Amino acid sequence: MSDNTNQQWGGRFNEPTDAFVARFTASVEFDQRMYLQDIRGSIAHAKMLTKAGVLTEDERDDIIRGLGEIRIEIERGEFEWSVALEDVHMNIEAALTKKIGITGKKLHTGRSRNDQVATDIRLYLRDEVDLILEEITRLQQGLLGVAEREADTIMPGFTHLQTAQPVTFGHHLLAWFEMLSRDYGRFVDCRERTNIMPLGAAALAGTTYPIERDMTCELLGFSAPAENSLDAVSDRDFAIEFCAASSILLMHMTRMSEELVLWTSAQFNFINLPDRFCTGSSIMPQKKNPDVPELVRGKSGRVYGHLMSLLTLMKSQPLAYNKDNQEDKEPLFDAIDTVKGCLRAFADMIPALEPKKESMREAALRGFSTATDLADYLVRKGVAFRDAHEIVGKSVAYGIEQNKDLGEMTLDELAQFSDVITADVFDVLTLEGSVAARDHIGGTAPNQVRAAVARGEKKLAERQA
Amino acid sequence: MSDNTNQQWGGRFNEPTDAFVARFTASVEFDQRMYLQDIRGSIAHAKMLTKAGVLTEDERDDIIRGLGEIRIEIERGEFEWSVALEDVHMNIEAALTKKIGITGKKLHTGRSRNDQVATDIRLYLRDEVDLILEEITRLQQGLLGVAEREADTIMPGFTHLQTAQPVTFGHHLLAWFEMLSRDYGRFVDCRERTNIMPLGAAALAGTTYPIERDMTCELLGFSAPAENSLDAVSDRDFAIEFCAASSILLMHMTRMSEELVLWTSAQFNFINLPDRFCTGSSIMPQKKNPDVPELVRGKSGRVYGHLMSLLTLMKSQPLAYNKDNQEDKEPLFDAIDTVKGCLRAFADMIPALEPKKESMREAALRGFSTATDLADYLVRKGVAFRDAHEIVGKSVAYGIEQNKDLGEMTLDELAQFSDVITADVFDVLTLEGSVAARDHIGGTAPNQVRAAVARGEKKLAERQA
Amino acid sequence: MSDNTNQQWGGRFNEPTDAFVARFTASVEFDQRMYLQDIRGSIAHAKMLTKAGVLTEDERDDIIRGLGEIRIEIERGEFEWSVALEDVHMNIEAALTKKIGITGKKLHTGRSRNDQVATDIRLYLRDEVDLILEEITRLQQGLLGVAEREADTIMPGFTHLQTAQPVTFGHHLLAWFEMLSRDYGRFVDCRERTNIMPLGAAALAGTTYPIERDMTCELLGFSAPAENSLDAVSDRDFAIEFCAASSILLMHMTRMSEELVLWTSAQFNFINLPDRFCTGSSIMPQKKNPDVPELVRGKSGRVYGHLMSLLTLMKSQPLAYNKDNQEDKEPLFDAIDTVKGCLRAFADMIPALEPKKESMREAALRGFSTATDLADYLVRKGVAFRDAHEIVGKSVAYGIEQNKDLGEMTLDELAQFSDVITADVFDVLTLEGSVAARDHIGGTAPNQVRAAVARGEKKLAERQA
Amino acid sequence: MSDNTNQQWGGRFNEPTDAFVARFTASVEFDQRMYLQDIRGSIAHAKMLTKAGVLTEDERDDIIRGLGEIRIEIERGEFEWSVALEDVHMNIEAALTKKIGITGKKLHTGRSRNDQVATDIRLYLRDEVDLILEEITRLQQGLLGVAEREADTIMPGFTHLQTAQPVTFGHHLLAWFEMLSRDYGRFVDCRERTNIMPLGAAALAGTTYPIERDMTCELLGFSAPAENSLDAVSDRDFAIEFCAASSILLMHMTRMSEELVLWTSAQFNFINLPDRFCTGSSIMPQKKNPDVPELVRGKSGRVYGHLMSLLTLMKSQPLAYNKDNQEDKEPLFDAIDTVKGCLRAFADMIPALEPKKESMREAALRGFSTATDLADYLVRKGVAFRDAHEIVGKSVAYGIEQNKDLGEMTLDELAQFSDVITADVFDVLTLEGSVAARDHIGGTAPNQVRAAVARGEKKLAERQA
Repeated sequence: MSDNTNQQWGGRFNEPTDAFVARFTASVEFDQRMYLQDIRGSIAHAKMLTKAGVLTEDERDDIIRGLGEIRIEIERGEFEWSVALEDVHMNIEAALTKKIGITGKKLHTGRSRNDQVATDIRLYLRDEVDLILEEITRLQQGLLGVAEREADTIMPGFTHLQTAQPVTFGHHLLAWFEMLSRDYGRFVDCRERTNIMPLGAAALAGTTYPIERDMTCELLGFSAPAENSLDAVSDRDFAIEFCAASSILLMHMTRMSEELVLWTSAQFNFINLPDRFCTGSSIMPQKKNPDVPELVRGKSGRVYGHLMSLLTLMKSQPLAYNKDNQEDKEPLFDAIDTVKGCLRAFADMIPALEPKKESMREAALRGFSTATDLADYLVRKGVAFRDAHEIVGKSVAYGIEQNKDLGEMTLDELAQFSDVITADVFDVLTLEGSVAARDHIGGTAPNQVRAAVARGEKKLAERQA
Repeated sequence: MSDNTNQQWGGRFNEPTDAFVARFTASVEFDQRMYLQDIRGSIAHAKMLTKAGVLTEDERDDIIRGLGEIRIEIERGEFEWSVALEDVHMNIEAALTKKIGITGKKLHTGRSRNDQVATDIRLYLRDEVDLILEEITRLQQGLLGVAEREADTIMPGFTHLQTAQPVTFGHHLLAWFEMLSRDYGRFVDCRERTNIMPLGAAALAGTTYPIERDMTCELLGFSAPAENSLDAVSDRDFAIEFCAASSILLMHMTRMSEELVLWTSAQFNFINLPDRFCTGSSIMPQKKNPDVPELVRGKSGRVYGHLMSLLTLMKSQPLAYNKDNQEDKEPLFDAIDTVKGCLRAFADMIPALEPKKESMREAALRGFSTATDLADYLVRKGVAFRDAHEIVGKSVAYGIEQNKDLGEMTLDELAQFSDVITADVFDVLTLEGSVAARDHIGGTAPNQVRAAVARGEKKLAERQA
Repeated sequence: MSDNTNQQWGGRFNEPTDAFVARFTASVEFDQRMYLQDIRGSIAHAKMLTKAGVLTEDERDDIIRGLGEIRIEIERGEFEWSVALEDVHMNIEAALTKKIGITGKKLHTGRSRNDQVATDIRLYLRDEVDLILEEITRLQQGLLGVAEREADTIMPGFTHLQTAQPVTFGHHLLAWFEMLSRDYGRFVDCRERTNIMPLGAAALAGTTYPIERDMTCELLGFSAPAENSLDAVSDRDFAIEFCAASSILLMHMTRMSEELVLWTSAQFNFINLPDRFCTGSSIMPQKKNPDVPELVRGKSGRVYGHLMSLLTLMKSQPLAYNKDNQEDKEPLFDAIDTVKGCLRAFADMIPALEPKKESMREAALRGFSTATDLADYLVRKGVAFRDAHEIVGKSVAYGIEQNKDLGEMTLDELAQFSDVITADVFDVLTLEGSVAARDHIGGTAPNQVRAAVARGEKKLAERQA
Repeated sequence: MSDNTNQQWGGRFNEPTDAFVARFTASVEFDQRMYLQDIRGSIAHAKMLTKAGVLTEDERDDIIRGLGEIRIEIERGEFEWSVALEDVHMNIEAALTKKIGITGKKLHTGRSRNDQVATDIRLYLRDEVDLILEEITRLQQGLLGVAEREADTIMPGFTHLQTAQPVTFGHHLLAWFEMLSRDYGRFVDCRERTNIMPLGAAALAGTTYPIERDMTCELLGFSAPAENSLDAVSDRDFAIEFCAASSILLMHMTRMSEELVLWTSAQFNFINLPDRFCTGSSIMPQKKNPDVPELVRGKSGRVYGHLMSLLTLMKSQPLAYNKDNQEDKEPLFDAIDTVKGCLRAFADMIPALEPKKESMREAALRGFSTATDLADYLVRKGVAFRDAHEIVGKSVAYGIEQNKDLGEMTLDELAQFSDVITADVFDVLTLEGSVAARDHIGGTAPNQVRAAVARGEKKLAERQA
């Protein structure tokens, strides 16, 4: 990257920018990734200026052709970016002027870098959110597939990481599906608030040229022009909202990751992750590590951090644009990359999860997971719930001492705690009986799981429409 | 608050809870503020259980009457909260049982504290969001009022806190209005995702009782029952989303506050804050400090902190409910209180802002605020924009040296930088000419400001509908 | 709390403070907890003013007596705090003046609330840090006790939550000890930077009275007076540093908590937590939940949040004191309370941990934990490490298929992967052989654990000295 | 960067790593910047293994030579980094083995990547902290220089951004000096806790080879070997502590930046920043923006974010090493780069600040900055402080009405508020009188400023010793 100085704003200045300061304040190294949006925005602006009579049709065509060539050069890696030209906007404008002469300079009429960068970043984010929405859907589809397949697979459900009640594996995965549905909604809402056009705000107050914002707006696919020029160039709340939605998504993914890591441990042994999603150890030959969920869990930190970074950045900034705002891009870009990477890794991996059904079942049989069912049984036999709770508590204490789960006790053993317990108790102490009995919307009964999958599929199908 | 131990879950336990642990793990000191939602939820649950045949109508009526009495006792400050009863739920249930006997214990049939607390907190938050939406609207109304009144008041617009171009004070306040409109939208979206009913999820897997979730849902005004029981009891993403929306709102308010503080300084001297919104100094008799905006600016910290707190809290929690989740309440409650307090203070204060128009105008006349207008003038006379920029830059350098703003120079002085400058230049160098020329949607021209106020009023009116 | 208005700074004001603003800006509800430090500071100030000739000895004695009475009233709950008097300082000064007349007003000579509050908060924090240091030491003592007792108890060591190599339970607990040693150091360093006296800085610039800062400094036990008055009244970096040290401590405690939660799960089953540190479920009679570690894990969120809160608070504040700073107290106080509560809970609980040695040992025997030992064995027999790694990897793959750990294979089975394996291989495949072989400073060998405990005890003893 | 797969841990694996997963989990793109520390660590390890009899002297010499060649290749940009080799360690080891054959593989004896990376990162951070300490000192030297030069320059001191009392510009800059002194101390403390050697901890439990950790420790300049192997490979608290110290430093720099931005505004007009530290506008020819302080202010966000990122990363990680930890590097590296860049920019810029003394003085004369002096004058004449405060408050109210500062009123005007006011009042109302009267350690009197500069110079000199 070259850094010969070529300042565009020098008339008022008596000495050139310090070389370190020039590098320290330049953004081209990271904002060049918005080149496509910058070019797209400039083409729309040129078309509008032509309609407004500021540019001739020939000038417009020269600009469009020149920008097209620049795009190709950039995509081929042949474009020479210059730090002295500060940012993606000046780099492209300077190249355009070199290519088509004085007309290149006219392109900047009626706009400023302040509204230009705000437009670029919104276009860029909008495009990326669309990709993210697709990946969430793909991950959710994978979850529905496994959930349907495992609607009858029984595992222990936990609270406090203590065995609580039996649930089905399909039901558990549908909890993840629900989290992701809300995440999807948050990104949709964020996209809507992002898709507003700053162009026309110029430096901060609007412009004296006869611009037609509705035309640019339509050409760029924005839903409306921003209502206030000061606000348009200075706020970055949409970027913060994106990082907030991303942080919540990553939070959800840490929970999934935590469970995947637990489940692949020797102690839980609930699932197998195919080797292609794992790595080994340079020193311990037996190791097969669940790297993908661990790394995703760790990546929550960077997304949380970017959220905090942007919130801090914007705190106490007076209107309108301040140089501080240049710091909005790297956190946002890295949040986007991280979200896409994590979603892709999960969307690839989830359909390949291999539950170890015997091991899950075995675990569900331990830990007194049907204690609540026994209490409910007593209640149905007329015992008050609090008394039933006490009776079952004592049975569990006995079981711990004797190292027997409830279902493993004899009728005599059980009956010593309450004389209403009879042989039919063993029906409610089965895992199948326990899950099937939770048969209402949102419950873990296999038929409810299948119904939930069907509703989920319908919801995903509607997104495509 | 009493703390004699009376544990409801003791059958399995060999020793009582350690006294310090009991206090350390109890939540009643802060969750009692949800008493109304807890009672409302219990009444709906009792009605549903009656329809489902679990309670008789008499039992239901006893419960409703008992809970009504408890509510009154709480509101009169006569209710004795007990730390030993851990939380708001157990305190109320114990009081109910004391009041109406064994029937009180039946109320807990088919639910668990896990779905109960998740229901209470969503009801509570929903109610508070409604109040917040009202306060945002009130603040926005105040802004529209001042903006309309000051649609012609000229002040300097800043970028980098350097004088940039003249804007109108009304236009500036409308930038604040726009920020708040997006904040409003975020709270509406958050409310929608909050207003989903966990009740029926029981401990984590649903319940074996024949519950009718649609009935409870309707009675409590939820938009739908939660689709998955594990998700319903364990996620707190709605609380994080609320704190994110609150953080962005507070971020916006720090920007407003920063400007209010600047504007009340002797150096800016743009506005006067009525004495009733200020405080003085115990030692410096001349001081009148803009405490309200300063404090609001400072309060951003606590809301950002609560957001980070909840994101951290939920990171890496395996499903379903864990005790960690008890820590969701205090940050959420304090965020709610802070948001309401800051909005109220601003909604009261904004209509009372007194702009010092002469001082604003004087500042706009300094700082070469019409330099862009001069450049545009040169462009209209056929000078290329980059050359125009250079010419004006040199005029400014001259002005700094001579301590004269552009509008204060003679025609001869101006003409030494370009011979296309003639007497008509003084029209574009007036403040009125400058702002009036930015006459498009979003621009600072007074008639655009008035049109924006009208659109804003329409938008607020539609909210009421 | 009364809130009749009685403003001390009204001469310049034309209207009283708005009632809501008065409440919104008052701090007395939370800063009254510094009453003792405020009184202590005032007494030292009065003594100094007497030496400086500003107060007479009689006046000084009246002040000291009056403040002593106020202290007693506060501690008996008989003091009437008033919101109208804004903060702890004005409340106490007003009460003093009421008690001893005009002399009470003289106490404020040569100081301002700005240096007064900065002094109070540093004194308060210093006292609390001393308590925290004691609790860390107590917790560390508990860890050394269990570590010594369990120096020979073998458990699996994990990386990636996959079985890695056998370690001793004592060694594992010493890792926690080390973390806490660094935390201790951070609090000591923070205390040192906190223990600097702002008094004498007055409002921001120092005072015109002939104060003797060294005298007050010595009376209050500060190590030195602050070097710069503007800095003294405006910075809160010591409070941020405290929250950072607290966040790192809590981070460490989340790691300990996470392990305790895992270890008490049915799947790990490594330890038992005595019932007095656990709670149960209102619905699931078998549950015994590890509430204390869960809650501590969750409380990390609030401390991280407070750190972020204070960092945000101070961002971009111009010198010197701004009202924003009032927001420093609640986060700091809550961080202090949280740290003390978590440390106390752990210091009480750790010595009561009951390892389930058989279960730990059983787990260490599974998961191919001695695979590295086998590889090292092959290296000693002349196999290159990378080849040895490959050989052991294949043995493990075979073991997974056959469901046999390395130590359970016959010599023939092992020898099929390398012909250098002979009968002596079984020595290195024992758990005892494996841990004993890691016999260097920092290694897991039991004698190293005992030596580390001895060094730890020496270190703790030196703290008392 | 090549990414052909060449996994070092494949014996146990049945299928190659998925290509996306390989890229997603690789760290070489960012950890290659630790190549020097990795090589330095390996050389020390090789020397130690030779003394321990594991390597021959010839093998050691081959390794040292090979690593030296690799270092040169890397520094010349000729080294081919491979994603398939995952990280900097495997890349260098593979290159070494290619260069010197089987001996290259022996280098990994008695260590693991877990202790290797922990060692590299500590060495790297230690080196960078040393550079940071130098830059802080350079910045502080610049401040002392300007402070001494401007010990008599009077400006208004602010609280609440309202004029409070006159201070000297030198005194104000010394407040910044003090903040930086504490920052310096925090980095020194962090360096001390960082400079502990993990090497020897191997994967997590130590190693079976006869290593001599004291020797490696001395060769690498660490102050001691880590006391516990599990702790050594798994904790990253030193990196968090670094980010906390950096966040506090950046917080201080936002305060300085905020003031610089204010002071360069047309409204304050207190200083001039030389053109070489500023940039202009592409559209507004008059603009000269204080980019450096604005950008530094904005960069606080990224450092705060990295702190939060690392705290989140480590939350709830069970021991020992987890893949999550790979995410520690990018935040740490970026925090280091940011801190160095911001310090360099300030250290270059501060000595070039040009105060506009007349403008500062003019501002100090406005805003009733000597009101406290007038109150103190009244007290010396026997008026009780509270009455004096009231009298001056009324004088100020009169002054606001008449648009006259206190020093501009006639004796008659002043005397209407108190008859003890006589002609000598004008001495205390001068700016020089006001600042000179605050003549104690920490006060703003010019001779105190000079004394403070002298103490500061002594302190900096002692650092070099």
